[in-house]
Amino acid sequence: MLENALTFSHSLLKNTINQGDLVIDATAGNGHDTLFLAKLVGPEGRVLAFDIQQQAIDNTQTLLSEHNILNTSVIHDGHQHLNKYLSENTLINGAIFNLGYLPGADKKIITNKDSTLAAIKTILPKLANHGLVVLVVYYGHPGGQTELSALLDSVTQLPQQKYAVLQYQFINQVNQPPLVLAIQKK
Amino acid sequence: MLENALTFSHSLLKNTINQGDLVIDATAGNGHDTLFLAKLVGPEGRVLAFDIQQQAIDNTQTLLSEHNILNTSVIHDGHQHLNKYLSENTLINGAIFNLGYLPGADKKIITNKDSTLAAIKTILPKLANHGLVVLVVYYGHPGGQTELSALLDSVTQLPQQKYAVLQYQFINQVNQPPLVLAIQKK
Repeated sequence: MLENALTFSHSLLKNTINQGDLVIDATAGNGHDTLFLAKLVGPEGRVLAFDIQQQAIDNTQTLLSEHNILNTSVIHDGHQHLNKYLSENTLINGAIFNLGYLPGADKKIITNKDSTLAAIKTILPKLANHGLVVLVVYYGHPGGQTELSALLDSVTQLPQQKYAVLQYQFINQVNQPPLVLAIQKK
Repeated sequence: MLENALTFSHSLLKNTINQGDLVIDATAGNGHDTLFLAKLVGPEGRVLAFDIQQQAIDNTQTLLSEHNILNTSVIHDGHQHLNKYLSENTLINGAIFNLGYLPGADKKIITNKDSTLAAIKTILPKLANHGLVVLVVYYGHPGGQTELSALLDSVTQLPQQKYAVLQYQFINQVNQPPLVLAIQKK
C-alpha cells in the first residue's frame, strides 16, 4: 500500500541517515521518533531531542530508558534554540519535526510558525551534503493551517541550486491527514 | 537522495506489481516504461501498451524486440479505448501514464485532458484491490497546465473510502519538473 505520512517520513530518514550521524528530533513528543533516530545512528551516533513541554521530556526519557538508549540528549528547550547545544562548525545529517500538538496532551499547546521557521533557518546552514530535514505536518487543528501556509511560503522559496523541497500528500481525504515536507541539501 | 518523479513512479510500481499481473502502459512513448512493466510481471504476466503515434509504437516494438519481450501487446490506439482490448471482468493490477509529449518527437502532439480523464475513468472500475494507477505529469509545455488542473480537479474528488490519492511533487523548482499522482484502490 502507499505509505502514509508517518511511514514515508521514516522511509526517507532510513534511506538517508547512517550509523554515526548527528541528527535532531525537533519535536520529541512521546519519544517515538527519538527512539527511531537513536537506533538509526547507533552507538557511535548522536541524537538531540527538543521539546518545550515537561510531559514530552518525561515521556521521551522513559521510552529511551526502557530501550537502554545512551546516545541521546533530551533537551527541555524550544527547537529554535538548538544552536546553544551545538558547536559552531558541527554539521547535522538529519532532522525531523512533527508539527501540531502532543498526542494525549493539551491540544491548545501547538507548535507555531515562528519557532518552526526559526528552527529550520537555524538547521539549514548546518546541514551536511545530502542532509535531510523532514517535517510531518498535522494541520487539522485550530492554528494548523496558519502554520502550514507559512511553512509552504517559506520552503518554496528555498533556492533549487542548494535544496530540493518535496511535498508528499494525500489529496482526496476530507479529514486533513498529515502531509510530509522534506528538504534535502544538494 | 530524494527520488525524482520518474524514479519514484517506478518504486511505487515495484512495490505493488507482482509476477503474473496484468498491467497497462497507457502512454507507451519510447517504450521504457513498457519494458520496465514487462520485466516486473514476468513471463506469466501481461502488459498492454497504448499509444496514438506510429513513431511511439515503432520505438516501443523495437525496444521490446531487443529485450526478447514476449508478454506485451503494443496497441496503436488511444488509451481511452482500452476496454476494446479487455474482456468485461478482467481486473488490472497497475497502470502508468506519462502525460505530456513524446520525447524526441513533435512537441505539439500532447496528451490531453479529455482522453486522459476518459482512460482513468475506464481503468478505475477494473482495478484489483490495492491496484495502482501512477501518473507522471509533465506540465511545463503549452497545454500542460490545463491537463494538470483538470486531472487534479478530478482525482481530488475520488471517494476516500475506495481510493487513496497521493501527490508527490518538488515545490521549489522554477522549471516545472514532472510530478507524480498515484491512485490506489483500497
